[in-house]
Amino acid sequence: MNITPAPSDLAFVPFVSVDDMMKIINKIGPAKAIADIADYIESDFRRWESFDKTPRVAAHSPEGVIELMPTSDGETYGFKYVNGHPANMARGFQTVTAFGVLSNVSNGYPVLLTEMTVLTALRTAATSVVAARHLAPKGAKTMAMIGNGAQCEFQALAFQKVLGIENVRLYDIDSTATDKAAKNLSSSGLNITKCADPHQAIAGAEIITTCTADKQYATILTDNMVGAGVHINAIGGDCPGKTELHRDILSRSDIFVEYPPQTRIEGEIQQLAEDHPVTELWQVITGTADGRTSKNQVTLFDSVGFAIEDFSALRYIHDRLEDIDHYQELDMIADPDDPRDLFGMLARASKAA
Amino acid sequence: MNITPAPSDLAFVPFVSVDDMMKIINKIGPAKAIADIADYIESDFRRWESFDKTPRVAAHSPEGVIELMPTSDGETYGFKYVNGHPANMARGFQTVTAFGVLSNVSNGYPVLLTEMTVLTALRTAATSVVAARHLAPKGAKTMAMIGNGAQCEFQALAFQKVLGIENVRLYDIDSTATDKAAKNLSSSGLNITKCADPHQAIAGAEIITTCTADKQYATILTDNMVGAGVHINAIGGDCPGKTELHRDILSRSDIFVEYPPQTRIEGEIQQLAEDHPVTELWQVITGTADGRTSKNQVTLFDSVGFAIEDFSALRYIHDRLEDIDHYQELDMIADPDDPRDLFGMLARASKAA
Repeated sequence: MNITPAPSDLAFVPFVSVDDMMKIINKIGPAKAIADIADYIESDFRRWESFDKTPRVAAHSPEGVIELMPTSDGETYGFKYVNGHPANMARGFQTVTAFGVLSNVSNGYPVLLTEMTVLTALRTAATSVVAARHLAPKGAKTMAMIGNGAQCEFQALAFQKVLGIENVRLYDIDSTATDKAAKNLSSSGLNITKCADPHQAIAGAEIITTCTADKQYATILTDNMVGAGVHINAIGGDCPGKTELHRDILSRSDIFVEYPPQTRIEGEIQQLAEDHPVTELWQVITGTADGRTSKNQVTLFDSVGFAIEDFSALRYIHDRLEDIDHYQELDMIADPDDPRDLFGMLARASKAA
Repeated sequence: MNITPAPSDLAFVPFVSVDDMMKIINKIGPAKAIADIADYIESDFRRWESFDKTPRVAAHSPEGVIELMPTSDGETYGFKYVNGHPANMARGFQTVTAFGVLSNVSNGYPVLLTEMTVLTALRTAATSVVAARHLAPKGAKTMAMIGNGAQCEFQALAFQKVLGIENVRLYDIDSTATDKAAKNLSSSGLNITKCADPHQAIAGAEIITTCTADKQYATILTDNMVGAGVHINAIGGDCPGKTELHRDILSRSDIFVEYPPQTRIEGEIQQLAEDHPVTELWQVITGTADGRTSKNQVTLFDSVGFAIEDFSALRYIHDRLEDIDHYQELDMIADPDDPRDLFGMLARASKAA
């Protein structure tokens, strides 16, 4: 690379590519990385009130949505760019891709640029186990996984590692997705059962994870399928018009959410009245609200994904960079010797060329 | 670089570094690049109504602000990350740094990541000349430049190239900034005059550009300094609490703005009543509103910078990439063979390592 004149150290931003991210996560181990990120999320949720919070900024189109998800704790600022295009898969693209940035609030300079497609998969599973740690029945051993797409294996490993789940019962409307997930999890130590329908999948499950990708009102679970005492980890209903659960399930569940102003627009509860009572997960974590209080209670984590979870995941990766040297430095910030002399920097580059 | 397994073509996003951007702009020539970007901006302002518009999403802190500025025309989506930290200069950092992304709306994939500190300087000057083309007195030959910081030379070259300005009169509270700008413009062909005070700077100027960086209510121009028929190009008043012009100047000017909901918060007009009449620049460009209608009219372009201008600049750079081969491909988008098999991609990367 022929850089003239040489940029200063201030010009460089560490960049974690997809390849770097896979090396970092494989070095740590995916299950351990998810468990670690869960601890970062739990610690950030504990100081929930210190964050700037805003619903994501979405640009909707007939094909999907592009969103920016910013937040800040006053010292560090983070945002994620993420798209959601349900039609992408059939065209050979990822439904969800993402990248993110962490910055120093005091001077506004970015300190990390990273892929977040892989990282979002980890943080979504990490958020699920943070919620389940507080809401699922104690001693749960069996989880049903309805929807066996890109998020499935991360959820299974997260619940094994953090909750002690031993049995995972897979179902997807497309059996090739189930086959893929079963194969990927074959050496995990989990007992994997491929199921022919949702009823078979939920048999004996104390935890039901729904994670399907259709952009439409769907009914993955109906009321009669959900028994007393179950914890439902609802991942897939995450944008306007996209839900997975029958309304009647919601009515008899205690519902826990990340950030109500966003969940009421995007989550399962978009089916309910605007004032339907919900509990904020961070309040359960800090002990200011109840989580599971009885054995027969149906708990529902209506997860849509919130900016603070991405912030936690970005912090986690940033904290690993020194130890795990998988990143490159990008010449991304113009840094003239004299900050007022941007034009002079350009002129000198011309002379040097 | 040891990438295993090799990412597909879909994984890569072209990245224009600061060094690349300087090479691209120097190859085109800064003045021509600004004039070209002005044409892109004018053409996008002509189709103003086809854009998603939203005020920027700002995270304020005592030291400054970090902002995201998204927009979309339904086919292409763009956003800029930009900070503004007035205290940065004294600490050796840039007051404003920026980067931006252009994406394909139909699948949500980014098609360009680029530095935008240099590019923002160009697009700001380009926006100024777009406005001046419609508002400044015909045949103007002399411009006063109050504030000789990072934006100064770009403004001077833009007005020379697009408006035919021949004389530029420089003033800054810090004379070293004036010396810097005069030196940088010494071979431009402009007649440069270094002035000892603002009164001297505006003597005989048909166009007055104000571009100072203090984050406070300042009064760079008072009412008695502004004569009839002048066009004021007010760049520096661009966030809450930061203005440059005395209120009385605003009262007797015809005021033109980019996007009123943003300008009323950030621009000079934050000093005025919320319903004070302003004209949107795009309407002057399309001919649905009047620009300059008389010789003695004081016109004021209250510029704060809007997302569509960044979008235009991003489009311009993206359109140049094929011809001017200064970029690198970043492995930024996870692209497994089977979009549902993100975990399998991670697992295969582990085996390959």
